Amino acid sequence: MSGMEKPRNRRLFPHALDVANGRVDMTHGAGGRAMAQLVSEMFAAAFENEYLAQGNDMAVMAPPPGRLVMSTDGYVISPLFFPGGDIGSLAVHGTINDVAMSGAKPLYMSAGFIIEEGFPLADLKRIIEFMAGASRATGVPIVTGDTKVVERGKGDGVFIVTTGVGVLPEGLHISGDNIRPGDAILVSGSIGDHGIAILSKRENLEFETTLESDSAPLHDLVAHMVAAVPEVHCLRDPTRGGVAATLNELANQSDVGMALDEDALPIKPAVRGACELLGIDPLGVANEGKLLAFCPAGRAERLLEVMRSHPLGAESAIIGHVEEGQGRNLVRLRTSFGGDRVVEWLNGEQLPRIC
Amino acid sequence: MSGMEKPRNRRLFPHALDVANGRVDMTHGAGGRAMAQLVSEMFAAAFENEYLAQGNDMAVMAPPPGRLVMSTDGYVISPLFFPGGDIGSLAVHGTINDVAMSGAKPLYMSAGFIIEEGFPLADLKRIIEFMAGASRATGVPIVTGDTKVVERGKGDGVFIVTTGVGVLPEGLHISGDNIRPGDAILVSGSIGDHGIAILSKRENLEFETTLESDSAPLHDLVAHMVAAVPEVHCLRDPTRGGVAATLNELANQSDVGMALDEDALPIKPAVRGACELLGIDPLGVANEGKLLAFCPAGRAERLLEVMRSHPLGAESAIIGHVEEGQGRNLVRLRTSFGGDRVVEWLNGEQLPRIC
Repeated sequence: MSGMEKPRNRRLFPHALDVANGRVDMTHGAGGRAMAQLVSEMFAAAFENEYLAQGNDMAVMAPPPGRLVMSTDGYVISPLFFPGGDIGSLAVHGTINDVAMSGAKPLYMSAGFIIEEGFPLADLKRIIEFMAGASRATGVPIVTGDTKVVERGKGDGVFIVTTGVGVLPEGLHISGDNIRPGDAILVSGSIGDHGIAILSKRENLEFETTLESDSAPLHDLVAHMVAAVPEVHCLRDPTRGGVAATLNELANQSDVGMALDEDALPIKPAVRGACELLGIDPLGVANEGKLLAFCPAGRAERLLEVMRSHPLGAESAIIGHVEEGQGRNLVRLRTSFGGDRVVEWLNGEQLPRIC
Repeated sequence: MSGMEKPRNRRLFPHALDVANGRVDMTHGAGGRAMAQLVSEMFAAAFENEYLAQGNDMAVMAPPPGRLVMSTDGYVISPLFFPGGDIGSLAVHGTINDVAMSGAKPLYMSAGFIIEEGFPLADLKRIIEFMAGASRATGVPIVTGDTKVVERGKGDGVFIVTTGVGVLPEGLHISGDNIRPGDAILVSGSIGDHGIAILSKRENLEFETTLESDSAPLHDLVAHMVAAVPEVHCLRDPTRGGVAATLNELANQSDVGMALDEDALPIKPAVRGACELLGIDPLGVANEGKLLAFCPAGRAERLLEVMRSHPLGAESAIIGHVEEGQGRNLVRLRTSFGGDRVVEWLNGEQLPRIC
């Protein structure tokens, strides 16, 4: 996104983009004047910040005061607009969250767009504006970007890949291999909201619900958590594959077993009902504004208190613990009826393109 | 790309991926066990490095000793494999080059993949291995990544978005708005090779040529250049839109006019011939291993000497100069016949999906 940070250069671009009726065409990705106009008038105008205004194919920023953290995520969600969000704000939140799960403060983001020929400029503008709004609200500027266009039938509207970098203060060691026997397991709120909100809008699956995606940026919640309880061992946001996949992955990474208490899991009645209807397990459903936290048992009540005092953690709960001993790496669920079942790590058939 | 850096965990993944005959399916992007296996056995195995081995959704690196530089680029090139390269190594080179054009040393990369359902695992493995090879050869590790899968007909094989970060030493100010009247304009070698090599393989356009893409990482060349001539004002790689689009963009960014000397332009006979056949201007054709450099005229011979002493700059040439005075922002070409024409900034119709 280079070179043209001003709203419109009438000499270079004599005709305004027809945002109301226009569509993306192949010239918008081909490196010529049409692309420059799209970038200038839609992307650069919305994302405006001092780094993007440098107008180069890269951005230069001050040296970060600490260890560097980097994360990337692609977004291919369908539909592009959904209850509680859209692909643009989701791409901002999701990458901020991945950076934040290290305990780092997210500083900058990049955004790569892959747009299908024929995509309405008006929809692209909405996505860009939602994205710019999320960037402003989180204080994480989009400092550099790229736009590609593929022929009709070779893409699906818009895909976005965002990359975030952040800075990690000394003294924190928060990682998936750092979970210890005896740790408490906490979640920052109700699970499954995002996945069910998306499924409710799939063409082949429509059902009535007032559910909204929980898409939200978690960096401020994390900052409060690690300030109060720097002993946090691990943080992770249970996105694709939900809590079940995330806990199974972490159990393997840290070589521990985990036990969850079904009665402690915060699940909205609407999510529970939809999951029964669809025959899926809410533990396997994606979240986009929740995190799982692991900390020494003795610090769990304090961590819970801090999480609940934050707007994005008001419904936080202690949902289980890491078992003593090592080696089985299973995630077990003590059910409401006093039974005990293994939380399976599914193959992943049920929820395509959920993020 | 989290959690599974080891070659194969037989307990978690009892069945080996059938790389020879298998295809990507929707489960490979859905966050479950199938995705974990793909990431573990193909991506993490090939990209192996200490950062990826952290096994989290982000990577943590040492504090960079200087200003941070960040760039991102999407790759939607068709075909995926072409003479002189492939989408994987191109994605590494291209992003390294964008970072390097600031004068920075590239340090780390991320890679986001968007894969179409049905894509052969064998082709994916080839791409990953070319990418890993380019990463090793350049010394820039792929520290974090992401994989998404879209349904058949909603993508086109593989798209890749890479993001690079680097570190910029004090004392350099290399930027598109830093070109000054009187500057010399240099190019690091022959132009148009990449675009013509790609076009030669397009199904509707096949023609005979031995041309190969010039896809190459330019960071080492840049390091030599800025060490010898820190007064370099601007560097940019003329990719999409070629030299014509890049110079027009820079002329506007720095508010200057430029004059090129046609006889000085290094263009291979095969490129010249193909351009005549196709009715296109070599100045508008993409390059992936060349850079344009601007420096004070008095330093141009020294810069040329340094560039020519590097394997990737052996064919470097001084191709023109920045005109005295400001305000016209045109790029003019003095032709071999003594004429003078404006190098147009085309709209971008002629060369879709060239990178």
